[in-house]
Amino acid sequence: MPYELYYWPTIQGRGEYIRLALEEAGASYVDVARRSGGENKMMAMMDSRRLKTPPFAPPFLKAGNVVIAQVANILLYLGARHGLAPKSEAARLWIHQLQLTVTDFVVEVHDTHHPLGPTLYYEDQIGEAKKRSREFWKERVPKFLGYFEDLIARGGPYVHGRRITYVDLSLFQLVEGLRYAFPHSMKAFEGDVPRLIELRERVAARPNIKAYLQSDRRIAFNTDGIFRHYPALDK
Amino acid sequence: MPYELYYWPTIQGRGEYIRLALEEAGASYVDVARRSGGENKMMAMMDSRRLKTPPFAPPFLKAGNVVIAQVANILLYLGARHGLAPKSEAARLWIHQLQLTVTDFVVEVHDTHHPLGPTLYYEDQIGEAKKRSREFWKERVPKFLGYFEDLIARGGPYVHGRRITYVDLSLFQLVEGLRYAFPHSMKAFEGDVPRLIELRERVAARPNIKAYLQSDRRIAFNTDGIFRHYPALDK
Repeated sequence: MPYELYYWPTIQGRGEYIRLALEEAGASYVDVARRSGGENKMMAMMDSRRLKTPPFAPPFLKAGNVVIAQVANILLYLGARHGLAPKSEAARLWIHQLQLTVTDFVVEVHDTHHPLGPTLYYEDQIGEAKKRSREFWKERVPKFLGYFEDLIARGGPYVHGRRITYVDLSLFQLVEGLRYAFPHSMKAFEGDVPRLIELRERVAARPNIKAYLQSDRRIAFNTDGIFRHYPALDK
Repeated sequence: MPYELYYWPTIQGRGEYIRLALEEAGASYVDVARRSGGENKMMAMMDSRRLKTPPFAPPFLKAGNVVIAQVANILLYLGARHGLAPKSEAARLWIHQLQLTVTDFVVEVHDTHHPLGPTLYYEDQIGEAKKRSREFWKERVPKFLGYFEDLIARGGPYVHGRRITYVDLSLFQLVEGLRYAFPHSMKAFEGDVPRLIELRERVAARPNIKAYLQSDRRIAFNTDGIFRHYPALDK
């Protein structure tokens, strides 16, 4: 039975970290909300009284009878089943910890265009978004991406050594997202994290990922997702 | 060998979710940074080249030879060992998922007083903080706490039924924190989440938690933590 992924059909968003893992694994899955009637099905799942584990928000994954939400939690589940995480408990917790650090960074990416919160429009908070974006590039990007750069420098080529994990797929997505949303700032910054950029190339060249990126299963970046290209926020 | 908890010594902050779990479990632990020289030891751990799993930020927990960071990840580890999580994999992922939803809410709490980011002072963003706090109480608190209220309504008295889990301890902390930071707003809101308030009472009355709250191991709330009482942000 294929996995069922439930996520907003027109954006990469938080669902993309799951899509990348499913694609790299060569797992069989349906991107439910992208099918006819699928978005209604997703909303019905969230409101269902019969569902024992109702998600707070998409993305969520149906795996047989189990419904799992929260990106890092879904990856914890998938990683163990598809060779995208190491086997020992300690190493699995470590990779999960890194994914949770990616999660924290993704929140800060979202805050660049929505510092006043998710229920106001970007257009109502452009001034605040500019301030937040400046600080993001000055303080937060160097801190987060520098952390991962240092980890790769300890061994590499992947963040946990020679074998790819789901965190590497997420780091690929961070680089792609920053390149799309902040092309000038990212261009100026990339020289500071050469190993991370090399990791990005390595992930992009993996056969399953390469095929995915060329397929129409990969939704294009756009200004409804987490990474948004607003020229006013780029340098 | 006692656990070693590493977290900032003068605030509850994110470390408090770990402290509550260790206390409820009756686990032996040292709150390292609260001891003489402990904060330096914490910083040295984070910078250590010898540490295989360097944390991005506190809190982190040393358990024998393993060093684990990220609150929800630490609770995943502790929950399994101290009867603070169910035994089946599916139920464990469910409780972890709920903890990650708590994590998301904690970020939004922090954003009420720091909408422009963590490296500027509150005093430099009061106007933005007021806007964000209004939206927080109008949209986000009802959504998040209402979600947990509904879960308790399905069974109770705890969020996963009759047995306490680490998520219940975290929900207790959310109620305590909101009462401290936003006394007027929270007072007006509590009637909307009666089961959550009852859960808070139940957690507070547990012998180990009760003893902890009366001890000097419990740091008082203050305006350096995640929950901050700034009257300008309360109704």
